[in-house]
Amino acid sequence: MNETIKVTVWNEGVHEKTHDEVKAVYPNGIHNVLADGLRKHGFQVSTATLDDEPDHGLTDEVLACTDVMTWWGHMAHDRVKDEVARKVRARVLEGMGLICLHSAHMSKVFRGLMGTGCMLKWREVAEKERLWVVNPAHPIAADLPEYIELPHTEMYGEHFDIPAPDDLVFISWFAGGEVFRSGCCWHRGRGKVFYFRPGHETYPIYYNEQIVQVIANAVRWAAPVNTAVPVRGNYMPPLEDIGSEGKA
Amino acid sequence: MNETIKVTVWNEGVHEKTHDEVKAVYPNGIHNVLADGLRKHGFQVSTATLDDEPDHGLTDEVLACTDVMTWWGHMAHDRVKDEVARKVRARVLEGMGLICLHSAHMSKVFRGLMGTGCMLKWREVAEKERLWVVNPAHPIAADLPEYIELPHTEMYGEHFDIPAPDDLVFISWFAGGEVFRSGCCWHRGRGKVFYFRPGHETYPIYYNEQIVQVIANAVRWAAPVNTAVPVRGNYMPPLEDIGSEGKA
Amino acid sequence: MNETIKVTVWNEGVHEKTHDEVKAVYPNGIHNVLADGLRKHGFQVSTATLDDEPDHGLTDEVLACTDVMTWWGHMAHDRVKDEVARKVRARVLEGMGLICLHSAHMSKVFRGLMGTGCMLKWREVAEKERLWVVNPAHPIAADLPEYIELPHTEMYGEHFDIPAPDDLVFISWFAGGEVFRSGCCWHRGRGKVFYFRPGHETYPIYYNEQIVQVIANAVRWAAPVNTAVPVRGNYMPPLEDIGSEGKA
Amino acid sequence: MNETIKVTVWNEGVHEKTHDEVKAVYPNGIHNVLADGLRKHGFQVSTATLDDEPDHGLTDEVLACTDVMTWWGHMAHDRVKDEVARKVRARVLEGMGLICLHSAHMSKVFRGLMGTGCMLKWREVAEKERLWVVNPAHPIAADLPEYIELPHTEMYGEHFDIPAPDDLVFISWFAGGEVFRSGCCWHRGRGKVFYFRPGHETYPIYYNEQIVQVIANAVRWAAPVNTAVPVRGNYMPPLEDIGSEGKA
Repeated sequence: MNETIKVTVWNEGVHEKTHDEVKAVYPNGIHNVLADGLRKHGFQVSTATLDDEPDHGLTDEVLACTDVMTWWGHMAHDRVKDEVARKVRARVLEGMGLICLHSAHMSKVFRGLMGTGCMLKWREVAEKERLWVVNPAHPIAADLPEYIELPHTEMYGEHFDIPAPDDLVFISWFAGGEVFRSGCCWHRGRGKVFYFRPGHETYPIYYNEQIVQVIANAVRWAAPVNTAVPVRGNYMPPLEDIGSEGKA
Repeated sequence: MNETIKVTVWNEGVHEKTHDEVKAVYPNGIHNVLADGLRKHGFQVSTATLDDEPDHGLTDEVLACTDVMTWWGHMAHDRVKDEVARKVRARVLEGMGLICLHSAHMSKVFRGLMGTGCMLKWREVAEKERLWVVNPAHPIAADLPEYIELPHTEMYGEHFDIPAPDDLVFISWFAGGEVFRSGCCWHRGRGKVFYFRPGHETYPIYYNEQIVQVIANAVRWAAPVNTAVPVRGNYMPPLEDIGSEGKA
Repeated sequence: MNETIKVTVWNEGVHEKTHDEVKAVYPNGIHNVLADGLRKHGFQVSTATLDDEPDHGLTDEVLACTDVMTWWGHMAHDRVKDEVARKVRARVLEGMGLICLHSAHMSKVFRGLMGTGCMLKWREVAEKERLWVVNPAHPIAADLPEYIELPHTEMYGEHFDIPAPDDLVFISWFAGGEVFRSGCCWHRGRGKVFYFRPGHETYPIYYNEQIVQVIANAVRWAAPVNTAVPVRGNYMPPLEDIGSEGKA
Repeated sequence: MNETIKVTVWNEGVHEKTHDEVKAVYPNGIHNVLADGLRKHGFQVSTATLDDEPDHGLTDEVLACTDVMTWWGHMAHDRVKDEVARKVRARVLEGMGLICLHSAHMSKVFRGLMGTGCMLKWREVAEKERLWVVNPAHPIAADLPEYIELPHTEMYGEHFDIPAPDDLVFISWFAGGEVFRSGCCWHRGRGKVFYFRPGHETYPIYYNEQIVQVIANAVRWAAPVNTAVPVRGNYMPPLEDIGSEGKA
């Protein structure tokens, strides 16, 4: 993959307009902080938000030329049109990478791809979190120390109602007594999905260079692969290709 | 698990009424052949079909007292009410076992739990199939030879668009040149799902004792476990339980 | 599995003779406390220790009639004869269940079955541990709350150098800031292996009923399954069984 | 990974000297054909063989500057010195990629890393093989059709006694009735291992461009990642880093 990876940073972008304490941290929106961080890693980055027209900024054209999408949503999951969520999910199955961040665990797109409830425990007391690398062979752990420490975060706790990840890269420790599978990889169809826990609207998590490093690593991991599109449906190759036992 | 496992065998049951060649093989419906087979393994078995009223025979009461459900559907997946499919899926996440058979790969319940397209290749030329055990430590492979041979079956071929199974128990070989992940286990929430490929409306697959043995093994594997119901949502234990670092 | 499962509790048994503070907690040895605990769950339990003759108590006869073995070792891993370790490992591949406890992560048997270094971080400051269930569909989590709390334990921390488990059942939280994959399942050959972290020679962990419950659940999960012994080597079925394309 | 990946192609290289029918296919040895194929994919490739001195060509210096090693062996696994096998395995755990080809399933290095018996069925009747892609999201499947067909190969059949792979990329179909997990990925320590079935000393498999494409893809997937070296052993951070509960 020598070509520049095209990333679309999608953000609900509601908190930043309605809550002063969010505005204080992300005056131009979470998406712009994420986009700036990812551009420093050499990606070609666009942004889109819930209020963009049409289709929350996710038209067929935008989807078609997105290699990897990052998704942030929290208070307005329901306002994402079913049709758009369906199309994003279909694009993942076709090969687009998807990185779901923090409260995106309850987004229509993520839940649709997982098939489970995706709920968890949470607590907001600004406690300490450590994200430990549990798979040091995984490219998403590149260029990082063996744990990332965040001094003040929202807690997410197990049981996190997800399918067992194909690769588990990070497990979080929280000062208050909980653990969480914080960095999870799945293959879905021809695409890849990474869930990454950190990020909150009132803590400056996405300004943290290690956190951006993880997301950049995940973008590279999730970028599309030039594999064959499987043939589906009635499959009747020429008769000479069917062994002699392939007849009733 | 000393108590008798309660199984509900659900069947679409449409072919058996409308197609003579299906009627010839399953005059009383696929569900009754499956139910008879499973009763011989000591389970308490009920049946339900698409046309049963109300709710295709899957009322809240039926769901509540089902330990494991087997599902067969093919030509009428769309006629299963969304609300019923949603409830079955919710029961799986709560702990009910689910065994999806053959063309149930395209059922609303299975696709909803997988999150992928679930399509595959298929071909009907009555070719030979062998199901090889690839995990001989797995209880679903108990009391079987190292492969099951079916002289005449419909072919299902890869790529089967499913999440990678948590455990892969069987891989099928087909005379015409294809392979298929035929016995796949997943954990979803507090429940378990097993997909098992064999079975077709015009081949007498469910009269085969080895096939019934697999389904019986899967019923035992998928039976509910008495685990704790995880607490979800805002999780605020008494303050003394939060470590000193758990404060902003 | 209606028959009584036969368990052999193996213990190095050195600390209990040489260290007063261990003697104080386990005057009759760790193995006898574990054996008593497991007998209450209905298993037929024997014990063996490093100093037993011959073969550390693990003769061919003992191995042949053991369904599940639990293994505890710490300071004398090297004194286990290579030949005995090799035989135990071979029995696992043949179907015997193996439950490796605490410092058994560095035993010859476990390391041989894993193929990795199996090292980890550790710290002895009697800190608090919580073992969170992360797979509430798994039978090893049966009859337990959503976490087990141990007030004073040795810490084990990531990265734990093991192959990714086939099923991850528990993740531990430690007060000092670490996490650990504490309950890990693997299939190996026709056998099953469970690693369970808790247990230490100077903390009374194996008197804890929840800990014993986990080990009892693991015994049931790991008990042998009556699967076919795969044929290996040159495989030349009768010629009529080889398709016409199976010729040069 | 912009830098050129350094590959060491290791080959037992015995057949090519002793068997005329092997000499006919690989007059300069399997290693040189593999090396030439990989050079076309832009890697910096060296070779080494069993008879190279010292240490079968695998000195500490060679190991230290190898990013990914490919391994081919068959009739002389026992002649590989234990010490060399141990060092290669240690380098994998440190981060070196390892690609085990065909009969390397019985090599000391592979078996040591797997912990299982690694045996399988085999048959030499020059039958047809098809390798189906079962994970079209995986980079090892890049730039390939949905299956690779080899007109004449040795058969390898299940049960293949390996740990369940972390990612299963290819499943083989054989004309004679068997299936095989032919492309398997594992993470081990900080390193990655790929097993790839095709290749035989008397069939010209490594001249096949699709087969070389798979190996080249695997080299890229297995190349080392710049992750942190985990701290192991007694882990006692400064006291202020241990929470207040971290004291007895």
